[in-house]
Amino acid sequence: MNASLKYGPWACIAGASAVGGLGVSYAEQAAQRGLNVVLIARRAQSLVEAKAHITSRYAVEVRTVVADLESEAAVDIIANATGDLQVGLFIYNAALVPQGGFLQLDADLHRRTIAVNCVTPTLLAHYFGRAMAGRGKGAIVLISSGAALQGTKSIACYAAAKAYELILGEGLWDELRDNGVDALAYVVAATATPEYLARTEKLLKSGTSIAGDDAINMSRPKTPAQVAETLFSSLDQGPRCYSHATVANKMQADAAISRREVVEKMGRILTQAFAD
Amino acid sequence: MNASLKYGPWACIAGASAVGGLGVSYAEQAAQRGLNVVLIARRAQSLVEAKAHITSRYAVEVRTVVADLESEAAVDIIANATGDLQVGLFIYNAALVPQGGFLQLDADLHRRTIAVNCVTPTLLAHYFGRAMAGRGKGAIVLISSGAALQGTKSIACYAAAKAYELILGEGLWDELRDNGVDALAYVVAATATPEYLARTEKLLKSGTSIAGDDAINMSRPKTPAQVAETLFSSLDQGPRCYSHATVANKMQADAAISRREVVEKMGRILTQAFAD
Repeated sequence: MNASLKYGPWACIAGASAVGGLGVSYAEQAAQRGLNVVLIARRAQSLVEAKAHITSRYAVEVRTVVADLESEAAVDIIANATGDLQVGLFIYNAALVPQGGFLQLDADLHRRTIAVNCVTPTLLAHYFGRAMAGRGKGAIVLISSGAALQGTKSIACYAAAKAYELILGEGLWDELRDNGVDALAYVVAATATPEYLARTEKLLKSGTSIAGDDAINMSRPKTPAQVAETLFSSLDQGPRCYSHATVANKMQADAAISRREVVEKMGRILTQAFAD
Repeated sequence: MNASLKYGPWACIAGASAVGGLGVSYAEQAAQRGLNVVLIARRAQSLVEAKAHITSRYAVEVRTVVADLESEAAVDIIANATGDLQVGLFIYNAALVPQGGFLQLDADLHRRTIAVNCVTPTLLAHYFGRAMAGRGKGAIVLISSGAALQGTKSIACYAAAKAYELILGEGLWDELRDNGVDALAYVVAATATPEYLARTEKLLKSGTSIAGDDAINMSRPKTPAQVAETLFSSLDQGPRCYSHATVANKMQADAAISRREVVEKMGRILTQAFAD
């Protein structure tokens, strides 16, 4: 697929700064398909590195935008920085994942979690979606998570916010296809990003699955390149796609058991995976 | 069950002003069980009526708090107005439901939808939850909706926000039970509130189910009293309960079909239900 012909010449990825992370992997997939890319992140230095990483490998243009996706100003900053570009593909990959007890974490951290994971993707989907609808083509992807499929202890607010993105992405799929725009919620499970590897070091050393649940497979993560490839082969396969087929299967299996079991199981898995 | 003994002497219901609506119905159930009630809403006059409605029927104390649940100030206002009370049961029932195309609606309306349906319930659950955990008893209910179970055209942002509350409520159940606090996400389907009756006037006149889906039953809503009773008999039955058993069944059945079908079906139902 020539994504440029189908959607427009630029891809914009919000939350793309760590080389080896998922955002930059999505950008590489876009570049591989001939799309120029806009990378958005908070840290200017990371963006410099990410840009160098991509331009050294692909003959595409890369523009970087420094924006704090927690802030109310982010949408205007991004609109101003990309107003001259035809953004045909917009991927919202940014996330804030505070870990800890819901009551123990500061209220303001919950507010920021909602800002990054709910408010900003909504407003950016609205902004880019309007332009895409005007051109009658484009694609919007909201990156969700396996955590969205049930309430999840120790990341309760994050899991809820990922459910927001999941259901928003599905709704956008049904609405925007009338405008020729593809929308998709992408449910990402265990991926061997640098952050993930650091967090689950002990788990990975043990080399085994955890809590007896192979559907989660946190000890055998996919690579970011695999997860990014699956997304790019699924852009017109909304409303929802999964990075790991096992998670789709888990969701079906979970429908047959009580929510109590579903929630408890995930709570145990998370506790075990992120144990100090 | 004497809810007062179990949870503490006061129930606090955010989004309780319309007599005949769900918030006031929850308050009546609380009063019936001997709990004093705090009613929170934006409109002072409605609160006066709601208070009169309850005090004329039950020998309980009623306190009203005027607060705009969209605003950042709401949590402090509520904390100040209830700081002297032992709130044993907190129910977040407020909702903002903008109807219309996601791209056509104003971006600021989406922001307000997230404020009412995600930010404020999170911060109030955090505030009341800390006090309950300190006392080792209490219950928190987040009111979700059948709309949360799939992306839903024409109420895309609302459906996503209800998914947020659903998954947050489930996560809180798993976390707070360690502190002796019950938490529950309550999935409410078609209920004959004054607002619902006004919106679906045509549908109800037709007397038939719509889109061939009896699970939704939008043409045969339950009464607010029925929905409130089901909640009060389920307070310790988290992580998730349904007002209508048919919706629980629908969710199970949906797991076996494609998300495309699930989303399309709900889109058709909504379009038909709210057709002008």
